[in-house]
Amino acid sequence: MSDVITVAHGSGGSETKKLIDGIFAPAFANETLLAMEDSAVVKGSEKIAVTTDSFVVTPLEYRGGDIGRLCVCGTVNDLLMRGAIPRYLTCGFILESGLEIDVLKRVVQSLADTAKEANINIVAGDTKVIDGKGGLYINTAGVGLIPDGAPDIAAANTKEGDVIIVSGTMGDHHCTILSHRLNIESDMQSDNAPLVEMTEKLVDSGIPIHTMRDVTRGGLGTVLKELAESSGKTFYIDEESIPVSEAVKDFAKLMGTDVMYMGNEGKMVLTLPAEYSAKALELIKSSRYGENAAVIGEVKNEEKRNKKLIMRTMLGGERSLDILRGEGLPRIC
Amino acid sequence: MSDVITVAHGSGGSETKKLIDGIFAPAFANETLLAMEDSAVVKGSEKIAVTTDSFVVTPLEYRGGDIGRLCVCGTVNDLLMRGAIPRYLTCGFILESGLEIDVLKRVVQSLADTAKEANINIVAGDTKVIDGKGGLYINTAGVGLIPDGAPDIAAANTKEGDVIIVSGTMGDHHCTILSHRLNIESDMQSDNAPLVEMTEKLVDSGIPIHTMRDVTRGGLGTVLKELAESSGKTFYIDEESIPVSEAVKDFAKLMGTDVMYMGNEGKMVLTLPAEYSAKALELIKSSRYGENAAVIGEVKNEEKRNKKLIMRTMLGGERSLDILRGEGLPRIC
Repeated sequence: MSDVITVAHGSGGSETKKLIDGIFAPAFANETLLAMEDSAVVKGSEKIAVTTDSFVVTPLEYRGGDIGRLCVCGTVNDLLMRGAIPRYLTCGFILESGLEIDVLKRVVQSLADTAKEANINIVAGDTKVIDGKGGLYINTAGVGLIPDGAPDIAAANTKEGDVIIVSGTMGDHHCTILSHRLNIESDMQSDNAPLVEMTEKLVDSGIPIHTMRDVTRGGLGTVLKELAESSGKTFYIDEESIPVSEAVKDFAKLMGTDVMYMGNEGKMVLTLPAEYSAKALELIKSSRYGENAAVIGEVKNEEKRNKKLIMRTMLGGERSLDILRGEGLPRIC
Repeated sequence: MSDVITVAHGSGGSETKKLIDGIFAPAFANETLLAMEDSAVVKGSEKIAVTTDSFVVTPLEYRGGDIGRLCVCGTVNDLLMRGAIPRYLTCGFILESGLEIDVLKRVVQSLADTAKEANINIVAGDTKVIDGKGGLYINTAGVGLIPDGAPDIAAANTKEGDVIIVSGTMGDHHCTILSHRLNIESDMQSDNAPLVEMTEKLVDSGIPIHTMRDVTRGGLGTVLKELAESSGKTFYIDEESIPVSEAVKDFAKLMGTDVMYMGNEGKMVLTLPAEYSAKALELIKSSRYGENAAVIGEVKNEEKRNKKLIMRTMLGGERSLDILRGEGLPRIC
């Protein structure tokens, strides 16, 4: 096989077959996929969750992860946020000519490893090739099964008196990607992670979770403002309670960027009745990727301020926050 | 809104919201999608079919269709080929900066119209923006529900004595795309179409269909050779029985390309016991997009030639065909 992807790899004929047999099949090996049918026929359930995401992150590989790990995490987390059990993953690869085969191999292996970690099966795939400069885009779609009697978790369900919890530090993925682009040496790592353990524990505990959302592109500010809009309540958060690592704090100060609008890839925010706050926090903190979870605010019903997101600043003031304006960081995910 | 896509449209913040509110939401309007949850929660069934495809076709708009219509047809047909009822569609858009907003609007409307024709609901979407030259890539994934007692339709099920039927003319999509690229005036049109009606009629008729496959990238030769491999039988086809329009015949002769390896986007091939041949053909011919269906061959069990695809040529000879070798036509779908 040549060392880089060429247009012939996208023909749907013999060269595509080499790519599948040489790279995808060994990494993704499972009977459903290897049957190479037009679609996979698998076990369903009465209620299912469906989601999709495209991934265009650059660089393709970064400290703490790569586009392969990222695409699994993003889709798995979207399913988990509705109380679904992630079960089936589809992967559509768009390869640019010039992509190094070795890079593709590593990314595909990382994707397979992360799918294994998240206990989701890759059941369908597709590969296309376009002329380009060695880039790679991956689209994943996910199907999750919703167990009978599972709680109804949705953005609009947040209620007055709820606490707001985040599952860990903010800004790690954003700052890691940015530091790579700027060729700045750093110990920062992407947080890209599947949040299977913590969400399973929470759902199994019977705690009446009202809303769960993963905090990705757009950052915590955008997600919380959207939740305030959907639920029609006022969201109060305390600036000093938001978990941020020292490295990210320093880097964000240097760059003049706001941690509230930084992308993350392994963090979620949730709302639930205040009386369950301690129990929920304990469950998250005892789970993988949850050790830095914290309560960061509360939900009120204040007619004049409803649908607003208010931050109580470290200096004691109040600041109304909107969703992200402007460009953000391009190709962060 | 600006007249072309800019990087800011991919921020996940306010500019992305404008794109969603201004273009996607009006075209795709349905409650599930507009809830803007991390994933859609929908009704499932005991057995489901799952598939995915990425679309990178150029030009984005061509005679008879566009990338929006194409991406629905490709995914819907993949579900139909397993006897599933197409139900849920996800769409991941990767937009290149410079893409004309008007083109995006037309493509999105075409996608929505085709989804309506195929009776499939768009339940989840995603938009990313990359630097580029005004291109557009779409990934779709589809979920279909499989009714209780539905027949088991799979590549390996083809049996000795089966007839081979194709649902219409070969090469239309391929030649249409190629003629656009070469700026050749022509009346040829892409065949991109969802094959809902004919597959429904066939499945409902109780005819024991062994295998159905849509004939796309790679062409009829590649699909039939793969089916011969999967089933372990010998596939015989008669060259003169393969339906090809006069325009495509002429164009293919001019270009020196082989109709057996031309891509199609609204055609399928199926195998079933010979005694049901007339009935199946009648059902397909009476369905939308099926008027040119034809029996093109038969399946035998010949130990020495099994897994082979043999074409009886117009001159009375026999030719063993392989899957497509080489580049094919890049970015045909």
